Amino acid sequence: MQNKKYNIAIVGATGAVGLELLGLMTERNFPVSNLLLLASSRSAGKCLEFQGRKIVVQELNEKLFRNIDIAFFSAGSQRSLDYASIAAQNGVVVIDNSSAYRMDEDVPLVIPEINPREVALYNRKNIIANPNCTTAVMLMGIKPIHDLSGIKRIVATSFQAVSGAGAQAIDELSDQTRKWANSDKITSSIFPHQIAFNLIPHIDKFTGNGYTKEEMKLLNETQKILNDNNIMVTATTVRVPVFRSHCISVNVETESKVELTRVIEAYKSFPGLRVVDNPDKSLYPMPIESSGIDDCLIGRIREDYTIENGINFWISGDQLRKGAALNAIQIAEVLITNYV
Amino acid sequence: MQNKKYNIAIVGATGAVGLELLGLMTERNFPVSNLLLLASSRSAGKCLEFQGRKIVVQELNEKLFRNIDIAFFSAGSQRSLDYASIAAQNGVVVIDNSSAYRMDEDVPLVIPEINPREVALYNRKNIIANPNCTTAVMLMGIKPIHDLSGIKRIVATSFQAVSGAGAQAIDELSDQTRKWANSDKITSSIFPHQIAFNLIPHIDKFTGNGYTKEEMKLLNETQKILNDNNIMVTATTVRVPVFRSHCISVNVETESKVELTRVIEAYKSFPGLRVVDNPDKSLYPMPIESSGIDDCLIGRIREDYTIENGINFWISGDQLRKGAALNAIQIAEVLITNYV
Repeated sequence: MQNKKYNIAIVGATGAVGLELLGLMTERNFPVSNLLLLASSRSAGKCLEFQGRKIVVQELNEKLFRNIDIAFFSAGSQRSLDYASIAAQNGVVVIDNSSAYRMDEDVPLVIPEINPREVALYNRKNIIANPNCTTAVMLMGIKPIHDLSGIKRIVATSFQAVSGAGAQAIDELSDQTRKWANSDKITSSIFPHQIAFNLIPHIDKFTGNGYTKEEMKLLNETQKILNDNNIMVTATTVRVPVFRSHCISVNVETESKVELTRVIEAYKSFPGLRVVDNPDKSLYPMPIESSGIDDCLIGRIREDYTIENGINFWISGDQLRKGAALNAIQIAEVLITNYV
Repeated sequence: MQNKKYNIAIVGATGAVGLELLGLMTERNFPVSNLLLLASSRSAGKCLEFQGRKIVVQELNEKLFRNIDIAFFSAGSQRSLDYASIAAQNGVVVIDNSSAYRMDEDVPLVIPEINPREVALYNRKNIIANPNCTTAVMLMGIKPIHDLSGIKRIVATSFQAVSGAGAQAIDELSDQTRKWANSDKITSSIFPHQIAFNLIPHIDKFTGNGYTKEEMKLLNETQKILNDNNIMVTATTVRVPVFRSHCISVNVETESKVELTRVIEAYKSFPGLRVVDNPDKSLYPMPIESSGIDDCLIGRIREDYTIENGINFWISGDQLRKGAALNAIQIAEVLITNYV
């Protein structure tokens, strides 16, 4: 099995996550046999390089999945709804980065450092869901605490980079910044408002209860991934003028007292997490440090003195990596190592 | 008294807050007789315009306060400690924007919309303290809730603009952004790290307990201004690449149930506050909307369903105005209308 290679499809290959997946396949030496790159008609015909080979991006079509073993979907919920289940029914294992199947009871929602054994349930629908980017990063800091004590409640405020909204959003921040530098008029098309030098407290659609979908995902996906419906999460999610890496300010109320030293010890030994917490030397997690790396950086770890059992922390993770492509590849690695 | 005019000094006249004060004096038709502009030796000799007159900035010297009625200090804590009490002892009423005297029991700490009557205590030391910028903006959203119910606890995460760190910090964000646009190397001198396209979870110095002074001010000043030591505040304060206006994501736990409609009503009738909360139309407070105006903008007002009595809101206020110069002038207006 060590030498087995897999036919892989990437749906949304030209997007920010798709391109990251492509790079990570090489970086992690993922055993790829054939690689099929798919995108919308707009991007079809583009040429991408993979390990020295040039691969032409093809227009997404259900017939193309015929000989595929694993398909990574990262082209939005509608594309996943339209194509992922067809592919899955035809024997492809889909690792879906959209929110389409995350809350489906028959679809495991996996962060490999947290709940890798859920991957075993892949064959219920042949779909495994990749969590929301902010949830994935936040839970890297929550899981070690959850292992030490039950968690009552989380109050989270996110600082989300534009790359979470895709490649065009990155261009929009670039363009707006250059226009500012040239004193030109700034216009917006991807975000509802100017993002350069601004903050937009609005990510994904608003639901009827005053929260955005993004904010509700932090509750729902946390409960599912930690398999604990007692954890309450209230969140405010905000887009910030940062290119890459999300940060989250997290306040946690645990069920029982957990000494801070034990939390820090647990963080230090948790895979995928790096403690950066030396305020005297101005060391704490920042997007410019966490961008382009696999580890999430955690710091500003301190007791919350306003309640009996409270902890505050600040975590920064590359949402294109741990928040998306890296986590998806890690899921695929668990899958091929153990199951297919 | 209506026609009385006052001899005014501005200490730190060439700084971001000093310049804002100068503009607001004209805008609000503040009854100025003589205006003395003071700064460090570095800025002495500069010429500033006030109502058509050119005024030369002089080097700060205690002898210059002789005929001054009211002095606005906005040149850092050390300058306030060195000079404000000397001026005050000589009969000048000092309105101090630094943190030097805020927690002094004999110095009122005032937000005119919240605790204007505290101004009466000015004559204990002839000093009135202007609150921390983030605290001032946050409390504009807290006070109306506090009037409806006791408050148990606040979890706050701030998004603070560079102008809160002064005029040079504004230049640093500009310079770094232009360097990015020209693909030049980015260097930092005001902030400990690059601020362009980054987030720095570190404002003011770190104290021994893991919190920064800025974070502790949100607790201490809130208790003093609301005259309520039962309110607990845990905070994370973060510098963001925004030129002007602080935003704060605030989670409030009240003592008793307060209907959201009553909170919104209270907000609508509270002076200095404007409700901007229509998610369906993508309307919510943002720095680009709150910059340069007097009102703080409040929105994303919603029930926190994770606790019995919880409310979340998002507030944005110009920290050079409500967070500094405007609040200081408003204090002076209360003072001259009622006391001097």
